[in-house]
Amino acid sequence: MSHRLAVIGYGGMGSWHVENVREKIPSLEVKGIFDVRQEACDKAKENGLFVYSSKEQLLADPEVDLVTIAVPNNFHKPLVIECLRAGKNVICEKPVALNAAELEDMIAVSKETGRLFSIHQNRRWDKDYAIIKKMVREELLGKPYFIESRVLGSRGSMHGWRGYRVNGGGMVLDWGVHLIDQLLDMIDSPVVSVDSHLIHVFGGEVDDSIKVFLRFENGLSAMCEMSTNCFINQPRWHVSCTDGTAVIEDWACNGKMVKLNTEAEMEWADDIVYTEAGPTRTMAPRPKETTLELPLPEVQTDWSDYYKNILAVLDGEAELIVRPEQALRVMKVIDAVFEADRLNCGVHCHI
Amino acid sequence: MSHRLAVIGYGGMGSWHVENVREKIPSLEVKGIFDVRQEACDKAKENGLFVYSSKEQLLADPEVDLVTIAVPNNFHKPLVIECLRAGKNVICEKPVALNAAELEDMIAVSKETGRLFSIHQNRRWDKDYAIIKKMVREELLGKPYFIESRVLGSRGSMHGWRGYRVNGGGMVLDWGVHLIDQLLDMIDSPVVSVDSHLIHVFGGEVDDSIKVFLRFENGLSAMCEMSTNCFINQPRWHVSCTDGTAVIEDWACNGKMVKLNTEAEMEWADDIVYTEAGPTRTMAPRPKETTLELPLPEVQTDWSDYYKNILAVLDGEAELIVRPEQALRVMKVIDAVFEADRLNCGVHCHI
Repeated sequence: MSHRLAVIGYGGMGSWHVENVREKIPSLEVKGIFDVRQEACDKAKENGLFVYSSKEQLLADPEVDLVTIAVPNNFHKPLVIECLRAGKNVICEKPVALNAAELEDMIAVSKETGRLFSIHQNRRWDKDYAIIKKMVREELLGKPYFIESRVLGSRGSMHGWRGYRVNGGGMVLDWGVHLIDQLLDMIDSPVVSVDSHLIHVFGGEVDDSIKVFLRFENGLSAMCEMSTNCFINQPRWHVSCTDGTAVIEDWACNGKMVKLNTEAEMEWADDIVYTEAGPTRTMAPRPKETTLELPLPEVQTDWSDYYKNILAVLDGEAELIVRPEQALRVMKVIDAVFEADRLNCGVHCHI
Repeated sequence: MSHRLAVIGYGGMGSWHVENVREKIPSLEVKGIFDVRQEACDKAKENGLFVYSSKEQLLADPEVDLVTIAVPNNFHKPLVIECLRAGKNVICEKPVALNAAELEDMIAVSKETGRLFSIHQNRRWDKDYAIIKKMVREELLGKPYFIESRVLGSRGSMHGWRGYRVNGGGMVLDWGVHLIDQLLDMIDSPVVSVDSHLIHVFGGEVDDSIKVFLRFENGLSAMCEMSTNCFINQPRWHVSCTDGTAVIEDWACNGKMVKLNTEAEMEWADDIVYTEAGPTRTMAPRPKETTLELPLPEVQTDWSDYYKNILAVLDGEAELIVRPEQALRVMKVIDAVFEADRLNCGVHCHI
């Protein structure tokens, strides 16, 4: 079946959707866009797009069966509900909502209308994540126990409307939602506690540097860090497993896995390292020949699989990959992140 | 005044005390040692040391006014109390006790007897720590908000008696006590919550890889990680401050501070980075010319200052640097570390 897409909101992400659907999803025609801002409409026209004169005109277009919503976060809930009630299938940008309660209302309407409802958790198709997911799921280094996931920038503050509380700005809702979604997608166990530390380095209304700590029921823990004020980077991923350690340095996926080389001689056992103030045997370095360095596993990722899955679901040929129930878990964790920061202490949960 | 030291316990740390006091503290005579293990006594004799035939003989020696205790952790409390009651001034190895309640009993006896009581928190004299303390205290990069402190090894399991619960083994009590002491010594604010994750990678009785998260009342948070199973190292210190970032890679104190170069042009502001699955403006890298790289501050540390301070206190010429009340804060945090791990969730406190 052929499908036709309209995009509401033609800013950074809205134009990215249009451009990439046009280039990579030939079976999905981009019918047009709507934006409340004249300059966005002008830009869309320059790019050869049809611009609806109103939201109502867009929703009344019977040819459009799929709407992608890419507007500031505080408008997601009313707009998603309006689109669903107009009979459209809906993709909403992340964060799908400002909190779990909002999303529950949205999910109720999607069930009531029977329309497809998905969230653009595009970072599940980032290659670094796909590599770590494969390594964790297939236990390539045994069982993971500490996962660190970081996205660190130093450009200062949040961009545009993401700097305002009324718009649902801030780092938790901008990048936190990605890194938490990745962890919940990868780790097949309930979150049993959430701790967090949110900082407003630039004194703005919203959090701009954050740390989040999750404990899972299966005994694994994960830390996510995101910053707009970090001048010395740390690896995108650092994963401690029972049989070794994996690191991905950057989005280009430079990295490695290192494990014990059980064939190697163990005569180093009595080494002691002396620092300025004392000896340590436990922390003395391991000779390189007693370890084995392995390349990261090969994976293929293709972001266009996100839209291809949506179309296959609409055609009754596949199960939805990014389900609203998954996003609801993420939003419940995010509610707990804000609560933990407010309390200055971790909170119990079962998410 | 001249002082004479006896050392109880002639294992790894006990022999290290003897050797270093002999070499670096000429005003402190090492009178002898006592150990319950014949092989340790034989080794001491080989090293030209007088070996007391019993603990009682040592405690009855009127020439000995200072005793250093370096025995497994579970013996610290009874032995410290016995030495204090025998009229000796006491230095106890870390962890001074297995929990805060034990230490409170020990402190009560030191007050009752009026004897000096200190704990060998030697890692305060490690150069890496002294650099970070100076940077934090003098706000060389503005106010710190996230501190990460790591000591990562890969030799597997804990060494000797440190592998047994009955001896007070495990990573929290071995290295945790150092890293927490450093943070409490450096940060002038109460700890308001503690979270932790303790792992038994090697299936032993005691924790061998740990993470600890501390929130301080002044808005700063700190994470400590210690491991015996980490094959890809991370920096010893990573400190995020309002005006920049500092890293110390290793005990040799390789590292740097990086901050914004406010003189530099800012024309990069509209850069966007495209990863496999999407764009990011917030996390686009900052051109190097917009930052300034600075060397770490110069500091001098000398471990022998620990013993020199003890002697000066005995002579009425100085205040004690490592006070039992400080160790009590550390032990209270450690109690909370075990509690948080047991609950799988952070715990409130005011320490």
